[in-house]
Amino acid sequence: MNSIGHTLKLTLFGESHGEIVGALLDGVPAGTEIDIREVQRELDLRRPAPLIGTARHEADIVSARGGILDGRLTGTPLMLLFENTDVRSATYSERGRIPRPGHADYTSFVKYRGYADYRGGGQFSGRMTAPLVAAGAVARQYLRLKGIGVAARVVSIHDVADSGKYTFSQIEHGRFQNEVRCIDPAAASLMRERILDARRKGDSVGGVIECVASGVPPGIGEPFFDSIEGEISKMMFSIPAVKGVEFGSGFRSAALLGSENNDPFVIETANGMKRVATGTNNAGGVNGGITNGMDVVFRVAVKPTSSISVPQRSVDLESMEETATTVKGRHDPCIVPRAVIVVEAACSIALTDLYLRSGFQ
Amino acid sequence: MNSIGHTLKLTLFGESHGEIVGALLDGVPAGTEIDIREVQRELDLRRPAPLIGTARHEADIVSARGGILDGRLTGTPLMLLFENTDVRSATYSERGRIPRPGHADYTSFVKYRGYADYRGGGQFSGRMTAPLVAAGAVARQYLRLKGIGVAARVVSIHDVADSGKYTFSQIEHGRFQNEVRCIDPAAASLMRERILDARRKGDSVGGVIECVASGVPPGIGEPFFDSIEGEISKMMFSIPAVKGVEFGSGFRSAALLGSENNDPFVIETANGMKRVATGTNNAGGVNGGITNGMDVVFRVAVKPTSSISVPQRSVDLESMEETATTVKGRHDPCIVPRAVIVVEAACSIALTDLYLRSGFQ
Amino acid sequence: MNSIGHTLKLTLFGESHGEIVGALLDGVPAGTEIDIREVQRELDLRRPAPLIGTARHEADIVSARGGILDGRLTGTPLMLLFENTDVRSATYSERGRIPRPGHADYTSFVKYRGYADYRGGGQFSGRMTAPLVAAGAVARQYLRLKGIGVAARVVSIHDVADSGKYTFSQIEHGRFQNEVRCIDPAAASLMRERILDARRKGDSVGGVIECVASGVPPGIGEPFFDSIEGEISKMMFSIPAVKGVEFGSGFRSAALLGSENNDPFVIETANGMKRVATGTNNAGGVNGGITNGMDVVFRVAVKPTSSISVPQRSVDLESMEETATTVKGRHDPCIVPRAVIVVEAACSIALTDLYLRSGFQ
Amino acid sequence: MNSIGHTLKLTLFGESHGEIVGALLDGVPAGTEIDIREVQRELDLRRPAPLIGTARHEADIVSARGGILDGRLTGTPLMLLFENTDVRSATYSERGRIPRPGHADYTSFVKYRGYADYRGGGQFSGRMTAPLVAAGAVARQYLRLKGIGVAARVVSIHDVADSGKYTFSQIEHGRFQNEVRCIDPAAASLMRERILDARRKGDSVGGVIECVASGVPPGIGEPFFDSIEGEISKMMFSIPAVKGVEFGSGFRSAALLGSENNDPFVIETANGMKRVATGTNNAGGVNGGITNGMDVVFRVAVKPTSSISVPQRSVDLESMEETATTVKGRHDPCIVPRAVIVVEAACSIALTDLYLRSGFQ
Repeated sequence: MNSIGHTLKLTLFGESHGEIVGALLDGVPAGTEIDIREVQRELDLRRPAPLIGTARHEADIVSARGGILDGRLTGTPLMLLFENTDVRSATYSERGRIPRPGHADYTSFVKYRGYADYRGGGQFSGRMTAPLVAAGAVARQYLRLKGIGVAARVVSIHDVADSGKYTFSQIEHGRFQNEVRCIDPAAASLMRERILDARRKGDSVGGVIECVASGVPPGIGEPFFDSIEGEISKMMFSIPAVKGVEFGSGFRSAALLGSENNDPFVIETANGMKRVATGTNNAGGVNGGITNGMDVVFRVAVKPTSSISVPQRSVDLESMEETATTVKGRHDPCIVPRAVIVVEAACSIALTDLYLRSGFQ
Repeated sequence: MNSIGHTLKLTLFGESHGEIVGALLDGVPAGTEIDIREVQRELDLRRPAPLIGTARHEADIVSARGGILDGRLTGTPLMLLFENTDVRSATYSERGRIPRPGHADYTSFVKYRGYADYRGGGQFSGRMTAPLVAAGAVARQYLRLKGIGVAARVVSIHDVADSGKYTFSQIEHGRFQNEVRCIDPAAASLMRERILDARRKGDSVGGVIECVASGVPPGIGEPFFDSIEGEISKMMFSIPAVKGVEFGSGFRSAALLGSENNDPFVIETANGMKRVATGTNNAGGVNGGITNGMDVVFRVAVKPTSSISVPQRSVDLESMEETATTVKGRHDPCIVPRAVIVVEAACSIALTDLYLRSGFQ
Repeated sequence: MNSIGHTLKLTLFGESHGEIVGALLDGVPAGTEIDIREVQRELDLRRPAPLIGTARHEADIVSARGGILDGRLTGTPLMLLFENTDVRSATYSERGRIPRPGHADYTSFVKYRGYADYRGGGQFSGRMTAPLVAAGAVARQYLRLKGIGVAARVVSIHDVADSGKYTFSQIEHGRFQNEVRCIDPAAASLMRERILDARRKGDSVGGVIECVASGVPPGIGEPFFDSIEGEISKMMFSIPAVKGVEFGSGFRSAALLGSENNDPFVIETANGMKRVATGTNNAGGVNGGITNGMDVVFRVAVKPTSSISVPQRSVDLESMEETATTVKGRHDPCIVPRAVIVVEAACSIALTDLYLRSGFQ
Repeated sequence: MNSIGHTLKLTLFGESHGEIVGALLDGVPAGTEIDIREVQRELDLRRPAPLIGTARHEADIVSARGGILDGRLTGTPLMLLFENTDVRSATYSERGRIPRPGHADYTSFVKYRGYADYRGGGQFSGRMTAPLVAAGAVARQYLRLKGIGVAARVVSIHDVADSGKYTFSQIEHGRFQNEVRCIDPAAASLMRERILDARRKGDSVGGVIECVASGVPPGIGEPFFDSIEGEISKMMFSIPAVKGVEFGSGFRSAALLGSENNDPFVIETANGMKRVATGTNNAGGVNGGITNGMDVVFRVAVKPTSSISVPQRSVDLESMEETATTVKGRHDPCIVPRAVIVVEAACSIALTDLYLRSGFQ
């Protein structure tokens, strides 16, 4: 299904090289004030940076064509529409037959019996993240009204890591200060080098993104299956190129002792009010699938872009012979910086759904 | 919701220290032959091993009380029921007030406004994995009829790793040869030491499990959101203590070049039939969320058991004062070996649902 | 699927002549006080009356075996379990081969490829309404806390109608005063005659039930598809033998003028508060699928019981020859009086789900 | 939710007087050949006839803007889009305050807290049936490939009934022979008189539509809740103005004896093949919620159009005073003839979903 969500329902549609792509978002409460210009600003943050991004330049102008009146949601699905403009399908013409390694060409060929829209990856294209970002930007405006903020950043590109520790505020204000979306400028500069290096070789690099949701009240998340981790991870894995998701100390927790990894409960006092908090946050803000009031923290692994211009081995699906292929077209040598806003969007959508399911409104 | 699945629907019910726990499994095709003794055998593999497991000994006898007649499914939901027997709730009496670090005591207290069944973790207890294993064992019998096998193993406990490479057959036949569920006996023996060491200190350790599904035909998985990775990861995160999930090269892919990480397509010939395969399997058998015919491979990070007997800091939810707590009761110093069969079960359920959704039957 | 509902989720399980039947009810808010004795009292109202009902006598003792602690719901699914006791399957032995007219024997044989549990109708038996009534009784207790009452009554049996007009209070207090569940005693007595007459002939009769939900606030119901009418009718058609559902003036509205059928809006004053009401209630309390604050009123048509002892024509599914059949076993000559409490239960479940979806709690 | 369906998923969007309305249809198998001109022809059948229909004239030109390539579905959602052109919202300006009797103005005002798009009924407008018809036309093309036909007809307008008995073929070929969509020309002519009479008086009339699905294989439909009747009725009640649904002998069955209403099973021989059939079809082709291979037959009651130009009583939602109102704008004196194609569309969608769920493809 191209739909997800329980109380907030998102449906994506369109294809990379079709006429349109878009999102339908159903369930944000009527009356919520939505600023479409802000949605557009988030979309602009998804656009490729010069040199380190692809040369394809979609204007990515979103239009809201239903579900909103005089700046407020009406209760009907919000329709967020994009016209595809800069489409050069000729480049992709042989793809029906010779699947590109790392892409969904072969699997979609099998699944859709040869009838999928293969042009530019069809519905498997990174292009589908444009409507995802638009929908996420709307969800984010709702979350903000509830005091919840979402911010992500690049923590590593290839072998270069940003090893700094940052507060939510530092991430929120610092993440778009450079085109790599990494907080530490020195690391950012090294990361940029890695990307340009990959570009020069016709190759690509991946990286890791960390995302933080702050201000989430305790008690959000549904047992047994619709946990915070379950719902967020499912959403993350729908972002093309994501191959791993971990919460809090994640894979590192597997090598810790229980006495090291357990977060002790403490009492915090703010504005004369006592509240329960934890001394550390190895749980990433989630116990038993439910938020505990601390920041929700998770990381996603983004593989290197599948589209590379060095020759690769593939097969001809008609003759069933092995062959070589070189991926033409315009591609990002590293998708990670552009994926930062996508991860934030996907997180905002999952959180809004779980927030609404918890009976808050 | 305590339900998951689209065409195969699983619902869990009951609480750790209530009268019963169980699973309802709806959607495995009528006529499927199910051997309940085999389900019981898989449940036995979930039971704690002497010394390295908990001292609580539930017999975990499953009874199938609906949905099956003369050894075949009837088309109505299969009811898999467990009576709780070895319950000592007194041990847990103070837990309503002083939440145990790492557990869901506090978050469930908030979510259910103080009305949750807190005894023994209630529905957040590892006990809920007994019905999950039973349901998974049924799904596995269905998958086997389709030529699909699922097998997991421990790849690391704390800082000890099994660095061997194994075929699916080696994993399938070797995984239950020792109580640690690790293939390499030397590593297994070191892992056992780590667990006993933690036990002696009243502490606990975590680890990593790798799971492989073999024989999955290409074309399984739904775009955009109900991908193989999305559905499996959501299922994995519902297993208590899982904090990370990665597919194929996973987090490691973030530090690879595209030319290293892309799996080249090749032609394989088996029984005179040509089929498309990949030369490597960094994708973990999944492109664009859809299976490509290679083994589906993923790893889950299991945190160290939250229940430890060393004193920990916590808070009193009534007085809102900080306090110390020591977790009594009987617990596993390491849940990882027991989780192997749980991971297999959860994977089998997710795969069966996606298999049925693909229109195969 | 044997599940229904969005925020309140109900799953039924078991078979008429299996070991158990039951219901899992997930989503009634934690902390809701539930009196199981009251659930039992509603179940007793579903039991057959002497003479006009079946001679099969299930004690129908419900036990709540999870999801409730000290009389309050805990947030986990409420498990409502029934043991089947008075089962005489021998009577049904030939039914695998010769389908009973009006029953699901043939259709379930085809759907489940011969593997359905055919004994006593399996999951298609009216027996499944016992767990439905139990679940509905729980939902009703929740609705009552919100000021919503649900009451149904028999308006006709065969050609005998109760043509009286009654207030909600009259229906609520009068509906169980006689075994026919008809308000007007004179009509009740004639209806009883019709039923006994049918019984004497080995035949059966049907009837019409009207159900009213009072105190429903305006604004409940979801567009476009999950309307009050859509959700209630879907629930009603799951009750065996229901063949028609209409709201307000229903089929009669088709022969009215718009000026007759439209309900004028008026202002009502109660306790010094003005509220919007309608002068008539031809809409049955629903405009555009959403409640308008008036009583929700609908009627269901119940066909005559399919099980009759006069000989009928059928076929032998093995030899594919026509044959005659006589339905043995113990059956109700008229199911309508017993269905009154079932209709109330089904309505209560649908309303609770829609109430919770509206964000009320 | 504005979505419905399990394996076939339909989402409607847009508003009567917004920029667009449309439908997203997800789940018709990839490769299915779809003729959009045929979809357009069905849309043309929904347009108002001169005199007996509204004077609003939307061209209702559908465009398929995703999910289809070279005339075949690709496996992504099919996007069916309509631009609204003939919009005169000024007419509706006062409706935010004075709700029109019979309409959703008041209920949507309450539900959406005053933020609904009230112009022209917003999402509650009959205009939403244009995308419903388009989606249904696509589903119908799929069903036709499986040998299933769907055809409806007007059986009564106000007090004029077409009392003829017709075969499926007669209905299929005769239903659009006149603008009233009634098979018997004499009845059609009387019906037309009734409509024109209502129009002259500024009033409106309703009617009853019967729909038949022929060629449906036995075994379609899901127990307990997702029955043929449940799914079709839910879909029917989403059509504005539908207030009743009955299957087979429906409400009439309530006054029959079991021996009259039960359909005897018989053996039919066609092309040398024996198959099970029933001698009568009082069940409307459905036993136990599952198709039995006979025609699926149901009737829907359509209330008289709510928009009438005679003065009516209403209230002012601001001043909370009673007032009078006259509905201006352009409206149908009788919606029933136009609803015939809508009922067919809604039935085709529900049937396709259930067909796909049954594992057929």
